[in-house]
Amino acid sequence: MNWFQKEIRLEARRRGFHIITNEVVNQLPEIKKIKKGILNIFIKHSSASLTINENVSPDVRSDMEKHFNKMIPENISYYDHNSEGPDDIPAHIKASVLGSSISIPITNGDLNLGTWQGIYLCEHRNNGGIRKLVATIFGEE
Amino acid sequence: MNWFQKEIRLEARRRGFHIITNEVVNQLPEIKKIKKGILNIFIKHSSASLTINENVSPDVRSDMEKHFNKMIPENISYYDHNSEGPDDIPAHIKASVLGSSISIPITNGDLNLGTWQGIYLCEHRNNGGIRKLVATIFGEE
Amino acid sequence: MNWFQKEIRLEARRRGFHIITNEVVNQLPEIKKIKKGILNIFIKHSSASLTINENVSPDVRSDMEKHFNKMIPENISYYDHNSEGPDDIPAHIKASVLGSSISIPITNGDLNLGTWQGIYLCEHRNNGGIRKLVATIFGEE
Repeated sequence: MNWFQKEIRLEARRRGFHIITNEVVNQLPEIKKIKKGILNIFIKHSSASLTINENVSPDVRSDMEKHFNKMIPENISYYDHNSEGPDDIPAHIKASVLGSSISIPITNGDLNLGTWQGIYLCEHRNNGGIRKLVATIFGEE
Repeated sequence: MNWFQKEIRLEARRRGFHIITNEVVNQLPEIKKIKKGILNIFIKHSSASLTINENVSPDVRSDMEKHFNKMIPENISYYDHNSEGPDDIPAHIKASVLGSSISIPITNGDLNLGTWQGIYLCEHRNNGGIRKLVATIFGEE
Repeated sequence: MNWFQKEIRLEARRRGFHIITNEVVNQLPEIKKIKKGILNIFIKHSSASLTINENVSPDVRSDMEKHFNKMIPENISYYDHNSEGPDDIPAHIKASVLGSSISIPITNGDLNLGTWQGIYLCEHRNNGGIRKLVATIFGEE
């Protein structure tokens, strides 16, 4: 049994959905050591989130941004939590709908993702800044 | 410590929410060996998802399908990603709202689900075809 | 490698979003023993859920309750599953949107949450009663 844990800092990105698979995997060479295991990635923020989705078409990411902005709009009259601007409370709600961690199986030294799957950072703030992740790898060598 | 990992193929199902608890558990006799542990199930697709919900009434599953189709409709004018038909981008968005993996505690050789909980395959495409899962079981014997 | 598993009973709470971080952590002194690991918390119900979000402002929780009631309203004409009242099927749908488990990294004996993150119980029923969680802690001492 092997445990590995690392904090990863992601550069500030604009609001929207961003593929970060390579940026994350390149910082986790320990995945190669695991025969059967799990990679858990956790985001240490409540206004950004992580998800897994299609890894080729940029219009999947832009359509997701547009539709999340429709499902969870800014400036609804019943919102009270607007202290940091109109993107404040929608960012928190989106973060809980999408979730703060993902778990991906590791098989024979690689992430066992489907062909069309990648890891997304979902940045819900207009100026979210640097985002910190905790990657935890555990499994059988 | 015991690690077990297996790919499970689910037969093609129609669009909607489907209980797969028995189909999955019957293929994972190793659950019986674990005293304290976790079953993680990951779906290797970006237009279908996994969730846990009510395991008796079929109208929970049909109401969920109807309401997800209302929250994330087809044919919205701002969608760009329609190359595979009107169910294409809504399927991706639903997949991220519901999520691509579930983790269930294992206690004394059984899944420690609540009385009314079952595992759902959420098929978001009209013709999604066979769906592949990766089941990872880990824990103390 | 260390495995610990415990059932936690949460007192009945009113419908809405509630911070339970201290109540949960106080019942899990074993977290202190883990150098690198994971805490998984699973809720054994299909009409309540768990999420991670902002841990200071009560208006984040009340805005989330208001907005989830708008995204997933009561008394929609196409709902069939109303046997236990108008909050019945919306509670199930909300539970799947938010999810039935959370995984949080443990680092040097503490939950590795961000400064502004806490654990939420999301109670979707008007009278949900006592809620049972299963906490599973695993990692390297």
